[in-house]
Amino acid sequence: MELQKPRGTRDFLFKEMKERKLVENTMRKVFESYGYQEIKTPIFEDLSLFTLKSGEGITEEIYNFQDKGGRDLALRPELTAPVARLYLNQLQKAPRPIKMYYFGSCFRYERPQKGRFRQFWQMGCELIGGKSPDSEAEIIAMASQCLEELELEDYQIHLGNLGILRGILSQDNVSSDHQDDIMALIDKGDAGELEKLLEKLKLPASSKSILLELIGMQGHREIIGEVRDIIKDYPDALKSLEELGLLLEMLEAFGCVNYTVNLGIARGLDYYTGTVFEIYVEGLGAQKQISGGGTYNLIEVFGGEKVESTGFAFGFDRVMESLKLQETLTSAEKRVDVYVAPISPEMKLDAFRITQELRNSGISTDVELAGRKLKKILSFANNSGAKFVVLVGARELENGEVTIKDMESGDQEQVPRENVSDILLNRIKG
Amino acid sequence: MELQKPRGTRDFLFKEMKERKLVENTMRKVFESYGYQEIKTPIFEDLSLFTLKSGEGITEEIYNFQDKGGRDLALRPELTAPVARLYLNQLQKAPRPIKMYYFGSCFRYERPQKGRFRQFWQMGCELIGGKSPDSEAEIIAMASQCLEELELEDYQIHLGNLGILRGILSQDNVSSDHQDDIMALIDKGDAGELEKLLEKLKLPASSKSILLELIGMQGHREIIGEVRDIIKDYPDALKSLEELGLLLEMLEAFGCVNYTVNLGIARGLDYYTGTVFEIYVEGLGAQKQISGGGTYNLIEVFGGEKVESTGFAFGFDRVMESLKLQETLTSAEKRVDVYVAPISPEMKLDAFRITQELRNSGISTDVELAGRKLKKILSFANNSGAKFVVLVGARELENGEVTIKDMESGDQEQVPRENVSDILLNRIKG
Repeated sequence: MELQKPRGTRDFLFKEMKERKLVENTMRKVFESYGYQEIKTPIFEDLSLFTLKSGEGITEEIYNFQDKGGRDLALRPELTAPVARLYLNQLQKAPRPIKMYYFGSCFRYERPQKGRFRQFWQMGCELIGGKSPDSEAEIIAMASQCLEELELEDYQIHLGNLGILRGILSQDNVSSDHQDDIMALIDKGDAGELEKLLEKLKLPASSKSILLELIGMQGHREIIGEVRDIIKDYPDALKSLEELGLLLEMLEAFGCVNYTVNLGIARGLDYYTGTVFEIYVEGLGAQKQISGGGTYNLIEVFGGEKVESTGFAFGFDRVMESLKLQETLTSAEKRVDVYVAPISPEMKLDAFRITQELRNSGISTDVELAGRKLKKILSFANNSGAKFVVLVGARELENGEVTIKDMESGDQEQVPRENVSDILLNRIKG
Repeated sequence: MELQKPRGTRDFLFKEMKERKLVENTMRKVFESYGYQEIKTPIFEDLSLFTLKSGEGITEEIYNFQDKGGRDLALRPELTAPVARLYLNQLQKAPRPIKMYYFGSCFRYERPQKGRFRQFWQMGCELIGGKSPDSEAEIIAMASQCLEELELEDYQIHLGNLGILRGILSQDNVSSDHQDDIMALIDKGDAGELEKLLEKLKLPASSKSILLELIGMQGHREIIGEVRDIIKDYPDALKSLEELGLLLEMLEAFGCVNYTVNLGIARGLDYYTGTVFEIYVEGLGAQKQISGGGTYNLIEVFGGEKVESTGFAFGFDRVMESLKLQETLTSAEKRVDVYVAPISPEMKLDAFRITQELRNSGISTDVELAGRKLKKILSFANNSGAKFVVLVGARELENGEVTIKDMESGDQEQVPRENVSDILLNRIKG
């Protein structure tokens, strides 16, 4: 019989879990220092939550199923829709802006490949009821600060504003659905299909050439001026451009100057409306995007009243992958500080008592539970990363003493039984 | 349109998440002080992992479904089987004993009721390759210590050894399957059905009366002697009883004296073999069990070589419920320490700069993002639990100053702009 984990999923063992915990806690600390508070939503939701905006087509990638009561359920493929639902159910009357963060797993039925799994983790936040571009600036600065605290090098923040492209298309009477199709092709980077679609929609030649020029433009703050000249005849697009300029100014006040303006960013999901951003790490190859976010209108789509909403998420697994690539993560293999070993079986109960004293003093301690001989115990203790072994022998204990062995120097010394916690506490934490 | 979470699931908001995090972290700290390390397995597994030992009947309560590739998958109903699989896949050659802990959600399709949800959380551990009863004693002591650290009152640890009942049944040639049936009825507390089954199996009158007497026995260490007299003619049962006696002795060495020996504990799952225990909190009513565990043979059932394995889990939601009942949890409503408010819109960028300085000094800080007037800002800041508000005004800032308002006393004072972090850090953390 061969039991295996399902295709595209992972088990995480000790070292990896420690590293993930470290990264998770660093992000939590940053989020909380910005006033975000944690929420949690269910692993599965009604399937309709994810098909309402995105259409039935999206179910190809969704783990959907009927429960025993005939309900159409889905393992969540992302977390913005569940958070928007939670807002509608419980938070519409809460004081605004509402700052929420989440950390949880999502599921997509896709072909597994490097950096792409069927169960993956997202850590992100949603800010509901703040103003644009103030809120967007703060969120982008926060994403950047997380990566700074993690000491990730060579990441690139690319940002744009969908209102610029949509402003041009609206002025040329392209319907909202066709705009979504165009955005999807830009997001995919499929230049051929994009040309064809623009042709089919009979976009005026001038608009078409402006559009194609814009999506190729990247630069720092100086490109705002260049774009202004290009789109001078499109008032709605100009308005979005001014918003983008203001965003950059605020971003710099928040201390975030390491960004690239990239008007080719379109995001994969239809619910984004204005500012959008993505963060890349080139070393990751095809799955180089480690984060994405922006301003969205999902709450109105779900029937709520219009409220400005901005959010972003880290693809947690890809952040881990980036940190591993640059070998920044150094988690010690240490499992416990101290190992307690009875020299003979009849000393077991005394070893247990000493172990509990050490644990109660805040020292992580393991005790021999497998009934091994001393030599094997020492080798196991060494593998556990223990700095000290306490040897509990009958004759010594009668004299009120135990032996402490320093695993690094190999030195052994006898110490009074009643002082063993204090002595070790002093050596480990002192 | 009415979007709701699926029946039997929950959303967790800010305060509840903080309380859950506090409890989770307390348990983690205890587990780690005992040398346990965290692992994580997928949310879904092959269905067969859960039906192999327990039979197809169990699927009534399992969320099982076919994925788009036709695989029979199941949302995990518990975590011992996934951990046993992980051990078989990756840890058979690791130095033993292996101490692992997990925290994650499980799923059962049951009628939702007080204390029973379709997605629920388990926090538990598995110890593979330790000896009995040493390992069991340590695990029970650890479970007890978690509850002590959480300051949970009035919990009861009930423990027994399935080898006593099974020893009697084996000596009377009751098959292993029928033993499982008997254990299930004892676990349910269904006395009528139990009598019927024993009748049907033609158990000798003496064994039957001993069995019925034993499952009603509860007490402290002294009942070991009483039981010894009752089962004196059943050598296998006696052996298990001596093991139970040794367990109690070790438990006391581990500092855990608050237990009840209860020979009526049978556990619901078939894979338990020797020591078993459950922890109850009476105030919870029908769902009073907050934890359960014992020694099991799942690894052999899965085709691995025989290895002693012990584990337990807390029903995390029920632990939360117990703590709420006794009103032990006191999580502050504080979201941030400081709120920064620009007195007029043109002071926004300066407010952002000051905000970032405070955050970088380790002070959790929020800044006005909704463009409100001062009076509303102060009321919002007060709701956030902020101790101080920094007011950023144009005239003051020209003189190199900002105003700090103490939200408790209502006092305001002007301080040098460049010292604002130091002053606040001192007042908040000093």
